[in-house]
Formats: sequence, structure tokens, C-alpha cells
Amino acid sequence: MRGYGMFSVNNPGWLEKERPGCGPYDAIVTPRIVAPCSSDTHSLHGGSGPKENMILGHEAVGTVVEVGAEVKGFKPGDFVVVPCVTPDWLGLGIQHGKSFSHDRRPFGSFKFISSEDGVMAEFFHVIHADANLTHLAEGVTPEQALMTVDMMSTGFYGVEMADVRYGDTVVVIGIGPVGLMAVGGAALRGAGRLIGIGTRPNCVKVAREYGATDIVSYKEGDVVEQVRELTGGGADKVIIAGGGKDILAQALAMTREMGTVASVNYFDAADTLAFPTLAWGLGMVNKDIRSGFCPGGAVRIQKLMDVIRYRGFDSSKIISHTFRGFEKMEDALKLMDSKTPDLIKPVVYIDDLPGAAA
Amino acid sequence: MRGYGMFSVNNPGWLEKERPGCGPYDAIVTPRIVAPCSSDTHSLHGGSGPKENMILGHEAVGTVVEVGAEVKGFKPGDFVVVPCVTPDWLGLGIQHGKSFSHDRRPFGSFKFISSEDGVMAEFFHVIHADANLTHLAEGVTPEQALMTVDMMSTGFYGVEMADVRYGDTVVVIGIGPVGLMAVGGAALRGAGRLIGIGTRPNCVKVAREYGATDIVSYKEGDVVEQVRELTGGGADKVIIAGGGKDILAQALAMTREMGTVASVNYFDAADTLAFPTLAWGLGMVNKDIRSGFCPGGAVRIQKLMDVIRYRGFDSSKIISHTFRGFEKMEDALKLMDSKTPDLIKPVVYIDDLPGAAA
Amino acid sequence: MRGYGMFSVNNPGWLEKERPGCGPYDAIVTPRIVAPCSSDTHSLHGGSGPKENMILGHEAVGTVVEVGAEVKGFKPGDFVVVPCVTPDWLGLGIQHGKSFSHDRRPFGSFKFISSEDGVMAEFFHVIHADANLTHLAEGVTPEQALMTVDMMSTGFYGVEMADVRYGDTVVVIGIGPVGLMAVGGAALRGAGRLIGIGTRPNCVKVAREYGATDIVSYKEGDVVEQVRELTGGGADKVIIAGGGKDILAQALAMTREMGTVASVNYFDAADTLAFPTLAWGLGMVNKDIRSGFCPGGAVRIQKLMDVIRYRGFDSSKIISHTFRGFEKMEDALKLMDSKTPDLIKPVVYIDDLPGAAA
Amino acid sequence: MRGYGMFSVNNPGWLEKERPGCGPYDAIVTPRIVAPCSSDTHSLHGGSGPKENMILGHEAVGTVVEVGAEVKGFKPGDFVVVPCVTPDWLGLGIQHGKSFSHDRRPFGSFKFISSEDGVMAEFFHVIHADANLTHLAEGVTPEQALMTVDMMSTGFYGVEMADVRYGDTVVVIGIGPVGLMAVGGAALRGAGRLIGIGTRPNCVKVAREYGATDIVSYKEGDVVEQVRELTGGGADKVIIAGGGKDILAQALAMTREMGTVASVNYFDAADTLAFPTLAWGLGMVNKDIRSGFCPGGAVRIQKLMDVIRYRGFDSSKIISHTFRGFEKMEDALKLMDSKTPDLIKPVVYIDDLPGAAA
Repeated sequence: MRGYGMFSVNNPGWLEKERPGCGPYDAIVTPRIVAPCSSDTHSLHGGSGPKENMILGHEAVGTVVEVGAEVKGFKPGDFVVVPCVTPDWLGLGIQHGKSFSHDRRPFGSFKFISSEDGVMAEFFHVIHADANLTHLAEGVTPEQALMTVDMMSTGFYGVEMADVRYGDTVVVIGIGPVGLMAVGGAALRGAGRLIGIGTRPNCVKVAREYGATDIVSYKEGDVVEQVRELTGGGADKVIIAGGGKDILAQALAMTREMGTVASVNYFDAADTLAFPTLAWGLGMVNKDIRSGFCPGGAVRIQKLMDVIRYRGFDSSKIISHTFRGFEKMEDALKLMDSKTPDLIKPVVYIDDLPGAAA
Repeated sequence: MRGYGMFSVNNPGWLEKERPGCGPYDAIVTPRIVAPCSSDTHSLHGGSGPKENMILGHEAVGTVVEVGAEVKGFKPGDFVVVPCVTPDWLGLGIQHGKSFSHDRRPFGSFKFISSEDGVMAEFFHVIHADANLTHLAEGVTPEQALMTVDMMSTGFYGVEMADVRYGDTVVVIGIGPVGLMAVGGAALRGAGRLIGIGTRPNCVKVAREYGATDIVSYKEGDVVEQVRELTGGGADKVIIAGGGKDILAQALAMTREMGTVASVNYFDAADTLAFPTLAWGLGMVNKDIRSGFCPGGAVRIQKLMDVIRYRGFDSSKIISHTFRGFEKMEDALKLMDSKTPDLIKPVVYIDDLPGAAA
Repeated sequence: MRGYGMFSVNNPGWLEKERPGCGPYDAIVTPRIVAPCSSDTHSLHGGSGPKENMILGHEAVGTVVEVGAEVKGFKPGDFVVVPCVTPDWLGLGIQHGKSFSHDRRPFGSFKFISSEDGVMAEFFHVIHADANLTHLAEGVTPEQALMTVDMMSTGFYGVEMADVRYGDTVVVIGIGPVGLMAVGGAALRGAGRLIGIGTRPNCVKVAREYGATDIVSYKEGDVVEQVRELTGGGADKVIIAGGGKDILAQALAMTREMGTVASVNYFDAADTLAFPTLAWGLGMVNKDIRSGFCPGGAVRIQKLMDVIRYRGFDSSKIISHTFRGFEKMEDALKLMDSKTPDLIKPVVYIDDLPGAAA
Repeated sequence: MRGYGMFSVNNPGWLEKERPGCGPYDAIVTPRIVAPCSSDTHSLHGGSGPKENMILGHEAVGTVVEVGAEVKGFKPGDFVVVPCVTPDWLGLGIQHGKSFSHDRRPFGSFKFISSEDGVMAEFFHVIHADANLTHLAEGVTPEQALMTVDMMSTGFYGVEMADVRYGDTVVVIGIGPVGLMAVGGAALRGAGRLIGIGTRPNCVKVAREYGATDIVSYKEGDVVEQVRELTGGGADKVIIAGGGKDILAQALAMTREMGTVASVNYFDAADTLAFPTLAWGLGMVNKDIRSGFCPGGAVRIQKLMDVIRYRGFDSSKIISHTFRGFEKMEDALKLMDSKTPDLIKPVVYIDDLPGAAA
């Protein structure tokens, strides 16, 4: 089968590989809409090590083409939403509970573009179909569902780790697609003042639509100072959804005593972050620091689809670019890589989705 | 000074009492708007024991007329929002943390119409002014603020105790003023399907405006069966905001395994509730039961006002009747007692609020 | 194969059944030591419905005799500790997190003597071997390990649900084998005053050895009054590990405001418990009620074995009677049923355990 | 009155100051036993800024000599245990709940040697006596009680922030007096393997007595590597109770995915800590970082005294040196500063404690 991916670091292209096999509890899915993500281009550029001959992509909705003998809830032809994190539920890490992200090793529940080929192919493999796949919920479009599998799940997880409570002042650092979801997720938890940090006009627009009350930009001065002035000394909760080596220090400095910094940002393995003790309150003022990535499993996606359905949250607002046709995965990934100023999130319709959302 | 209250059980009227004294950390406040509550009429009818010669009322915004020598943050003339629960912060119960409701004894932080006279008087006393009073937040009307001091705080506490999470199916039993706030509070926490149980048309209307997706009425059959059918076997979280001896049994039966029942209902001391083990899953299925009343202190109210200000939540939607003039407290309380079909919540403007919200 | 069980309600005996089959992720185990439990006799007497032709027993350590093709961590010959709760990890209930007890339906992770035959047979089936079985830890005897699979796990879960904190006053109602484990578990969490309620001398003796500071007996008066006097009005945490229809009411009356009642007791489906609102503080004083049964999975057992190994907790102190030989399962179960005054917990060695603990 | 303290940074000596005044809710106490702490010498050396003319010391048990008019629970002559953290309970930071350490500003509940003179004087002032002082519990010696006010409370708080659960593998970095208490506190929470990092023989001895199962020393190689080898890749929980700029990086590297690092260490305001993203799992593996100092208030101390009384935990084992007489505070503080190899914790008996513990 064909798939778009990387021959090696910084060497992308169309790969020809064997169609994956299907274990007794597993499924084979063909994608119907996929969305490239900065994690894909990050992998392409070597950010997760020297991967070779690997199909990219980890955000998809699709149609089941084969299921293992033990699968009970799905059959070929079913339209399914595929979490980007698909745990091996028999791994003992599951039993530690935290977000089911670390099944047999740290970060192990993230299979696509990691221990398995990605979804930008004619077919892809999903472990433990009954626990990882889910049907599209009524009242939710395929595009909205597609945005749950990583963007919304990750952004909302930032809000959950930050433990946003009624009336809390919340800062979201970075208002790309994940940060925008954190903004929307914080509004949906009853945050009070909700400050997004970013500059790009279309991101700012969506941030405000999702509930941001203030936008802070580095173009108008030091962002820490701006936030500290707006908040009278620091926010209750700060969510990191982007940034470089100084971002943790900045986040800590924006956080009040007893507050929480929650990061869903992927940091480069070679980096050492700045960590000034003063911003941390000398380790004395109960500023918690939490971090993690997108939780795994079907129930997570079902819950998020219920938020879309019943709260009217439109997760597809972050889709800024649309491509049509299997071959366009290449263009979409290149767009993702180029990070044009108007880009938030591209999607690629593989076909016309006959009946998918019906 | 004059105040409206009870000479004895079921014997209401205008009382003449000494103006309360002011301790070194305390304040004396004159009310500007008050709201009678079913707890007031409940007390009048003996529901909290044989009270005598007690001024009623515990929901007020007002103006400070005197402060103790140690008070730092308030001065005479300040317009203030007064939590209905005003803890003695030096009571050791505070240090146990849970909602600051039990300062020196169970339920002890609730002072008005309990250990002190209520707010339906020319003046009332507030212990520990710096920790219990708060200024009106910008962007919040006095009426909205008045609704925070008990209704919104109590209803939202039901949601907090229930630990409503993204996409949870939530049932609110009883859509009087507190239940309506629980509906609004659950929507503001990102609930999924959100079912209100009630019948009165204007309550149903506000419930839908606050985010209820379904209304269930006992007029259309057994409410437990209706909820179980709508939810496929039980809701994640059930909040009790009204009901009689069977309400806990019904709530448990509506709750799925691993779900939570949270009650903010005041139960009569003489009652024994039905508690069928079957509805409780034989004590084996992790249905938690939590209960409590309105949390105390100024920060609580500040947080709720921030929800109003920044999330656009209009807490004044539950105000169904308006009276004007000090003398009208009597009519308002009688209305509260009569529970006319169109009643949700009455308020009494003592005067014209010159500059109050400015 | 042979197994001891029930032909029908109140009709026990030796059953001849097919040896169970082994799925791709599963294992077949032969027991080496088993322990009958009151849940077995409870089932025999119809307490979990009209079961027929079912082998009893759910507490065992044993030897693997067969594994499915996908099992990675176990092979025939391995000596294993078998949790009494063995979830189907692909059930969506797992993803709700709470103790992994409700995999595909309420209470569903409890397979033995429920949806599958029990362990008192020549062979028994274990679903998802890699996630449910565990090897015996170094420094732990097979007998101690056997006591982890239900008794210690359940009793300790009572302590966990009660959220026992440093210095908390804790009451354990019922000091049979599970209650004794709750006593030991509370001591191991740093409880302060620790009150066991019971009368049987050998249970009292073990309770004191496990850390009880006081023993209260119904023979010396009303237990609620005794506890309230000892605790100055109520304990912080009360754990129910036995009792009838009045036990929840008693537990609530023994609990102080902001305290927690946690039950690991199995209540009869036909019962309605007493639930006086006064004991519950009228629903106003934040007395939480939690309940559930033994958590599932291998990690749980590994953690408990580490408590035994590193804290020197001897879980085998509750073993009061020892039988030897497969045939003696019948006598052991009858002893369990007779509840002789000196009984705490019987075990049956199937054979001589050659090398089991080596 | 006289007191031992600092004229200015690095300039210690005996100060003559006015006896402090007593507010209406406050008390004046004369110390009976005091314990110098490294925070005192740290302040002396300028670690908390350019303090001048300040009496040192923040750990004391003593006798009440005066109380304000509103104090209900204490009278002159009462022997009292004085938490080192004595919040102003009317500060709004209290209402945020976390450990009551930040009353009106970050770190504000820590009054002694910060916003008020310390306890190494003839008299010292305690704000809000009813909420901050406590009587000595029966069965607890004055020396044991003295060790609760900072050492035990702080060390145990490390364990609480780390959320140590049954069977968790725990590392305590630094086995000085606070670290030793963290070791004891972890054992009292049912930790599994419990590794102390340190070298001094008498500290190692007490660590083992308090429940450490392993001692790791930098003298035998890289401590991170040693811990990772002992724990098979990382501990569940790591508590920092000492260390320099690299200690957070080391702690993170010792922690497994989904684990927690909890610090009770005071870091120098001028420092920037090493924070390699690799040790943090690139921000992807749910390693939480928490930090804070000793919680405040009387209930905390009462709970800890109950642990001593009912669990037989001897907090006085860390007392390595004893001085007698008011004048010896100077020697004790110098000893604290010299950090002799055999030092754990010195105490100074001001007098003969007639009847103190009676």
C-alpha cells in the first residue's frame, strides 16, 4: 500500500509498504479525513530521533476494513473516530491510571509515528479496537470529531491538569491549534479572566470566539510583565501550549502562589530549560508544575464529542485550510511545515465521505 | 431598630431589637437589596428548631455603616456583597478545609438566622469583615451579586461536589432557584447531556437558557425510569436540589456505577430517608454520596462574580419578582412562603441604590 | 475436571466440569493454596442470585499450566498470585478509572463465582494474564500473597476510600478478616486513634497487633455512643466492614462533620437501610459516603506485596485455620459457613508447594 | 527584653528590644524549649534578604503569659506548642486552601524571623492564638511536640505533596532533620521501598529506624544511577529535602513516568536550577513537580501529635544535641551553623520545665 511519510530525517516522500496485519483484538482502518500536525513535521525533522521509512500522520477519522476475531463492537464498514493515543490496555502502566498514556513504557500509548506507522496511508492498524475506536456521535460532524482526536483532547488536558475552577484567572501561552483548544476548554470549565498569549490575527480571532477575554502579545512588551499587571501579580493557572527554552520560567513568573502551571508542550530532548528559583517562589509558595500529553482511549473521545454535541462547542473552528484527495496529504504536510501566518490547522479529505456524517 | 422576622414558630412579624454591636474585626451593614429564601420560611415554620424573636433573611448586598478598629479593607459607605455563610475564621473547623462551613461546630459558619439575627433589618452584623465581605466587581450588577451569596454559591457547590467533568451526563433534581444554578454551573463545567427534573414553565425556561438539554417531569411518568432511559442506564452525576424522603433513593437509582450523587438539599431532622441497597449497587459499585451547603467567605463570592463578569453568566435570570421599599420584606417573605407557580426568586430593593453599581 | 461448588442454591458439592478454554491473552492456572471467603458461602446461599452448577472460590495462588499465544509475561510452571478481581481491560468501564472494578458492566471485573467458575477446581481461567497475574515478590510468603488478593486489597481499599490522613481518628466497624485488614491499613497510613468494633477474642488480638488503639464492643453498650464519647463527638473516618441494615446509620452517627464513611461491605439486594437525616447532619455537614469492592489488576497486588515486603506487614496473621489436600476444600468451606467463634480465615493447601516460595 | 538574633547580615548577637504588644485575638508566650533551625542561620547569612535587628528562632514550646481580650481557649500559664507557621486567618490567601501558608501574601503565614521577631527571646508574639496555639497532647513529650512545629510538619508535608500511596517506591533526597521526618512520614503512609540519600552515620542510623530500606550515598557513585538501578528505572515519588542547583534535575531523573517530585527545600533566590527536558520526559510523561513549606495552624500540630501518641512515632529521635539555659541559645545557633558531622538537631531547654508535660 501507499502512504506519505519519511524515508529518513528531512527526507519526506511517498512510501510503498506492506498493509499492516490485524491481531485478534485489533482493527485495520482506511482514513477518510486526516489532519497533519506539527508533531508529524517535528518527527520528519528528527525531533523524535532518527526514524526511517515511517508513514506519518496520527489524526484521522476513517472506515473500518478489517477486525480481529475477538472484536465485538466494530465491523468492516463502520465509520470510526480514531484517538491519536491508542493504548495497549494490557500494559501495566495503564493500571497507574494517569491518562492511560504510558502503557508499557513512558509515552508508549502513542503508537502512530512512534512504534507503528501513521495514518496517512491507504490503511493503518489500530490496537485493541473495542477500547480505542469509537463511532461518530450524533450531532457531531466528521471534521469536529477529527479535531477531538489530538487537538481538543490535548488542549483540554492542559485545562484538566491545571485544575481550572470557577472564576480562576487563566493564561494560555501559545494560541496555535492546541492552545486555542485550551482557551475553549478553560472557558468551558467556568474560568474567569482568560488571557491568550499570541499574535496571529486569525488565531486571535478564534481565541476570542472560544472565550478569551484578553490577548497579550510579545509585540507590545514583555509578556510576563503584561500578564502580571493584568492579573495583579499572577494568574491562578497557566497553560503552556507552545514556546522555547524560557517558557517554563515565564509561565512560573506569571503564576500566583498556590497556582499551577500545566504544560502540554513537547520539549526538545537536547534542551535545558531556564528555571530561576525566584519565579518558582524559592520552592516555597506551592506553585505546582504538571505536564503530559493527550490522554488515550475511546471514552475520552466520546466525552469530548458530548461536549461538542451538548455544549455547542465547535471544535472545527480551528480548521483553516482544506485539501481534497489522497495525494494532497503531501501538500498539507508541506503547508504544516511552512507555518504560513494564516495557518491554524489543515485537513485532507481523502474522498467525499459518502454517508459518513449521516 | 426594626427588622422582619419571627416572634416564634409560625408567628412572623416586625421586631424591634437593639442594633447589633461591632467587634474589633467586624462590620455593621445596612441592607440595600435582600432576597428571601426558602430557608427563611423553613425556619419560620420551625424547621431549624424553636427559634424566637429572630430577624429573618440571609441574602443581602448593602452598605457598610461601621467597622471595627482592626478592619483594613472596608470603611463606612462601602457597598458590599455579603456571603450568606460568614465563618468565624478562628474556629478550628476552618483548618479542616472543606468549604469552610463548619467553623466551631457543624454548620456553624452559617450565622444569619442561626446564631445571629438575619439581614432583613435596618442593620446587621458581619463577623470578620475583611475575610467575609467583598466589594462589588466591575461588570456585575448588584442584583447579580445578590444571587451569588447563596443561590449561585450553593448550586455551583453541588456541581463541585459532584465533580462534573467534560462531557459528563448530569441530572439536576429540582429546578427551583438553587437547582437552576446547578444547571448553569454544570453547563459552565463542560457537562455533556444535562437533564433538569421539574415542571414549572418559567423554571423550565430558565433551565434551558442555562444549558439544560432535556427536561424530565414526573407528570410524564416515573422520573427514575425516564432518566435511565435517556442515559442508557444512569447518569454520571446527579445533583439533588430539592425533594422529599425518596429523593436520595431516586438519585442513586439514576446514577451509573462510579458516578456521584451530590446533595445541597436541606433535609428535615425528623425524617428517615429511603435507602434501598439495590439502587446503591449493594455498596459495591462506587456510587459516591456527597452533601453540604453553601461554602463561606469572600473569595468564593469574588470567584463567582468573575464567572458572571468574564463568562457572561447572568445569575439574575432567576429573579422572578421584585419589590421596592423596606416594608415590602413582609410581602416578599409571604410570597416565598406561598410558592406561587410562577415564583422562582423574589428580591426586595430597600431603596433606590444610588450609585451602588456605578 | 473436578471442583467444589454449588449445584444450586444451598446445594453444595463436588462438580465435574469441562476444563476451561484459554483465549489468546489468557491463562489457565491450577491452584496451590486457596482461601474460602464469606462471599463464597453468601453465593451458595443465594445471596448473588440463583446460581447453578458453579465452582466456588475466588482467592488463590497457583501455577500456570497454559497461556494464550499473545501472553508475554507468563509461561506454564510459573507460580502466580491471582487477584480476585480480574478485569477485562478492553471494557470501557476501565477508562473511567475508579478501581477498575466495572469493566463492561457494574461489578463486572469480578469474574470468579460471578461470570466464570471459581478457583476451587483443578484448573481455572484467568482473563488477560499479562495484566491480571503477578509473580510472587521476593520476601513475601505464598500465604501472605494469598491474603492480598481479596482481604488485604479490600480492607486497604476501605482505608483509601476513607482518605485516612495523618492523625485522623478512624473507626473500623467489624473486625473480621477484611475489617482487620482495614485496621492494619489505617495504621499504615498514619491514623491517630484507631478504634475497632468487635468482640471475638482472636479478632481483637489481631486488631491490636495491627494497630488498633481501642476496641469497642456492643456488649458494653451502644456502640455509637461509645465511639462518640471516645472521639468527642465523632471520628474523622469510619470504615464499614460488616453489619446489617442499621450499619450505615450507625456509621454516619459516629462520623464528625466533614468526615467520611467508606463501606466495603456487601449489602443484600433485598434490603433497605436505615438512613436517618439527623445522623447525616441533614445533608448539610459534608459527611461523604463512599463504597466499593476490591480493586482489580496485577499492579494492585504488586503494591500490596511491596507493603508486606518493605513495611513488614504480616498479612497472614488473619489465617486462623489450615487445611491440607484438594479434598479439604469442602471442609474449609463448611467451616467458613459455620462461623465458629475462633474463625478468622481458613486456607487450604492443595499440595506441598514444592518450590513455590523459593 | 533580651533575645538572640542578628544586628545585621552575618552579625549575630544579643538584642535588647521592646516586649511585643498583644492584639485582641493574640497571645504573648515565653519559650520553654527552642530549637534552632538551618532557616535561622540561613537568615543570619542574608538568605532571606538584608534583615536587621531581628530576633531569630521559630521552633518553640512555651508558656502563655498574656492573651488578648477575645482569646477563648488559652490563658496565662498554659503550656503551649507553637506552630512555626502562624497564619493571619483573616487573610484572603487562607481561603485558597493550600496548606494555609500564604495568608496575605506569598509565604506570609510564616511570621517568625520574617515579618515578626523570632522565638529566641524572653517573650514572643503569636497572632490569632485560638487558631494557632495548641495544648500539649497526652502521651507526647514536650521535646516530641517541639519537633512537630517545623521538622515533622515540613517533612510530612513533603510526603503529602508527593501523594505517597501503599507500596510506592519513595526516595528522600537529604536525610537531615527534615528529610528524616520525610522518611518517617513515608513509612507511616505505607510506602514500599524507601530510599534515603545521605551519608552521615547518625542520620543513616535514624533513617533506618524511621523505615528507610536502602541508603544511597554519593560516595558510592552517581546517586541518580544508583537509584535508577535500585528501582528499575525510577521511583514513584521523590522528595527533595536538601540539595543545590542540580537537585531538581536529579530528582526528575530518579522519578518514573507518572511519578511526583515534591520539594520542601528552600532554594536561594539568586539561583537558576538545571532543568534538562530529558529528565522531565520532554514534558510528556506526567512527572508532577510540587513544592511548598510547612503548613500552618493548630489543627496540623494536633494531628501530628496524634501520630506520635497513637502510632508510637518518636519525633525526638532527631534531637542530637541538648543545651540548658537561656544563654545557650547562642551556642546552639553556632552549632547549627557549624554543621558538625554528628549534628542532626539541637534543642535548648530554657529552664527545667516544671510540670510542662504533666
